[in-house]
Amino acid sequence: MAMTMAEKILAKASGNKESQAGEIIMANIDVAMTHDLTGPLSVESFEKIGVDKVWDPDKIVIVFDHQVPADSIDAANNHMIMRKFVEEQGIKNFYDVREGVCHQVLPEKGHVVPGEVVVGTDSHTCTHGALGAFATGIGSTDMAMVFATGKLWFKVPETIKFDITGKLQDNVFAKDVVLNIIGNIGADGATYKACEFGGETTRNMSISDRMVLCNMAIEMGGKTGLVEPDQKTINYLKGRSTKSYEIIKTDNHAPSLETIHINVNELEPQIACPHNVDNVKPVSEVEGTPIDQVFLGSCTNGRLSDLRTAAKIIKGKEVSKNIRMLVIPASREVYTKAMDEGLLRTFVDSGALVCNPCCGPCLGGHIGLVGPGEVSLSTSNRNFKGRQGSPDAEVYLSSAAVAAASAIKGKITDPRVI
Amino acid sequence: MAMTMAEKILAKASGNKESQAGEIIMANIDVAMTHDLTGPLSVESFEKIGVDKVWDPDKIVIVFDHQVPADSIDAANNHMIMRKFVEEQGIKNFYDVREGVCHQVLPEKGHVVPGEVVVGTDSHTCTHGALGAFATGIGSTDMAMVFATGKLWFKVPETIKFDITGKLQDNVFAKDVVLNIIGNIGADGATYKACEFGGETTRNMSISDRMVLCNMAIEMGGKTGLVEPDQKTINYLKGRSTKSYEIIKTDNHAPSLETIHINVNELEPQIACPHNVDNVKPVSEVEGTPIDQVFLGSCTNGRLSDLRTAAKIIKGKEVSKNIRMLVIPASREVYTKAMDEGLLRTFVDSGALVCNPCCGPCLGGHIGLVGPGEVSLSTSNRNFKGRQGSPDAEVYLSSAAVAAASAIKGKITDPRVI
Repeated sequence: MAMTMAEKILAKASGNKESQAGEIIMANIDVAMTHDLTGPLSVESFEKIGVDKVWDPDKIVIVFDHQVPADSIDAANNHMIMRKFVEEQGIKNFYDVREGVCHQVLPEKGHVVPGEVVVGTDSHTCTHGALGAFATGIGSTDMAMVFATGKLWFKVPETIKFDITGKLQDNVFAKDVVLNIIGNIGADGATYKACEFGGETTRNMSISDRMVLCNMAIEMGGKTGLVEPDQKTINYLKGRSTKSYEIIKTDNHAPSLETIHINVNELEPQIACPHNVDNVKPVSEVEGTPIDQVFLGSCTNGRLSDLRTAAKIIKGKEVSKNIRMLVIPASREVYTKAMDEGLLRTFVDSGALVCNPCCGPCLGGHIGLVGPGEVSLSTSNRNFKGRQGSPDAEVYLSSAAVAAASAIKGKITDPRVI
Repeated sequence: MAMTMAEKILAKASGNKESQAGEIIMANIDVAMTHDLTGPLSVESFEKIGVDKVWDPDKIVIVFDHQVPADSIDAANNHMIMRKFVEEQGIKNFYDVREGVCHQVLPEKGHVVPGEVVVGTDSHTCTHGALGAFATGIGSTDMAMVFATGKLWFKVPETIKFDITGKLQDNVFAKDVVLNIIGNIGADGATYKACEFGGETTRNMSISDRMVLCNMAIEMGGKTGLVEPDQKTINYLKGRSTKSYEIIKTDNHAPSLETIHINVNELEPQIACPHNVDNVKPVSEVEGTPIDQVFLGSCTNGRLSDLRTAAKIIKGKEVSKNIRMLVIPASREVYTKAMDEGLLRTFVDSGALVCNPCCGPCLGGHIGLVGPGEVSLSTSNRNFKGRQGSPDAEVYLSSAAVAAASAIKGKITDPRVI
């Protein structure tokens, strides 16, 4: 039977030859990820189940990223709960406060390979689909059952394939593509669908850019984001992962597949305006909007390529005196490379503040919160009311290029004309 | 009449030829410093006074350092209050989230010169006495009166001069000297005294090291810390400050002067143990105490020399897997130089986490808090119960060298033998 990637991966994970959208299957989990914020809830629920040991400590990955270093006694307590769990359960894949954002650390450290089922207690777990895995966010109590049994049920999703063609203009990026898609189909436009990104434009994208696309799948309601693995995927995994893997692709005539064609030749930079991710406008419609803070970072756009893009725009210029710019590399690897390449120096010299790798202001619960009436321009993935601090603040979402250009001008700025 | 430095500076500031310990004088303030945490209280009190404009905006310096970037909506609000005040009052000497810890930024940026009276709404304002100023922490409401009038009353303090002689062993530093003094005379041993540090050892110290001594004066109850300016002071100020200044020194026969002689030839590294700064023991007595976190930073020991010392010890080694080490440069200047010298790379490679310049865990209200039962080894200045997070945590204070050596071993370690 013709099947989608999602169907094939879930069939394999459930020990079946086939699976079909709409079916309920019980999948064996390859990677179970949790972090410092939602992890303690999973641990608490796991302990209530009454099983002493997790099903397989080597398939669990724990990353501290949301509140690092601990910004409150509660956060410090959460860290302690997780460190104790790591020790008790013999979990080797543990990254304490120093490593970075989970969705960057897992791929970097080779924990995710094509064809796997990856679950994480974080909605942006869909990011990992950029490597051709079926990756999705789950609840903390569901994770407790995964810890105990290594299995989780899924309804096999239908797939929307975004067939992206055309050449992106200079200073237009994957973030603009995916914001444009979300703006068009809406925050519930892909509810429970596997969002597969394909077409020549996707194939020409780096793994980092593909991660941007998949990261945002949840923002249109998607169950997961996916990109078919190719030579770039294989190259990315070399030297990172020692796991064996199978490259799984979608049959174009799979019955559950819907294809949407998108041409990006004319696409201009896109901005998600307050207070919804699908309130997307081309930059030309919001240019000049004054801002108070720029956040360059997060699991969406805190990668080396983003820092390079922003540094190129900002080099030799100054961050507007009226705003502050926070640069938060997504991981220790990104931080180190950005330091070696002189990017961090460029940011600091321009007047930006470089913070330690972490989720930063994205979640509005740690560092970089904005106050009432303030406006944030952010390369992260959500702009809900109150998301980055005060419920009376506004958050705009953009690419790293828009963020950098806007930081210089102190207002939303088209990076193509700066 | 023979007078101490403190008496001479306060006489000059009050327009008198002489002043004597015990007198109440009204001093003209040369520098009034406030920050993001206590500043809003000063502004609120100032607004109640009913004066529209501050007495002299150019003598006010405002630095954001305690909660940067904002870690809560309250903190973001505090920042907004201060930014508004800065704008309304035309305060040019304003350092937003990006610059670093006030007690490092003021000297670096040339805001403090010898012979001045410097007040700040922060107890460690005494740090600035390292440049030969009379510098002291004041309450937020007192600062409101300074904002309004440019004046503040003082009781002229008596002076204790610590005449420090001898040669420090390798890996023994100013922090060890001052911890030893505090341990000997107690947390109230110099209550309301001007603590003057002199002698050949002090004269051989860099300005950074003198700042360590003066910074801790408050921990023995001192009204201020002071070091007589010399060529090193003059050199430090070159290229930093355009202010004119007068070098003021103590007359050795001033009636209000008490001298304590200290020889440091045999001094070993010192540790302030929980929960008081004067609970000081030589490192040999607490070696092996397990720790959970090391904090290298703060207005006490977050300077370039501290980072160099720590990096030298840590280079090529790894931070113990059982602990986390936070490195928080005291300012953007320190951060940048440490990056250029490769120190930050050394720290990151060793597994430490480098954060943005700020007060960090010192105050226990921002980042790097420790949880119940945890043990922190910190290069900062206070170890009171709950100071760095949970009231059930313990904080030990040390030099940067002890911190680095201990980070490698995961327990309190003598840097002389690592």
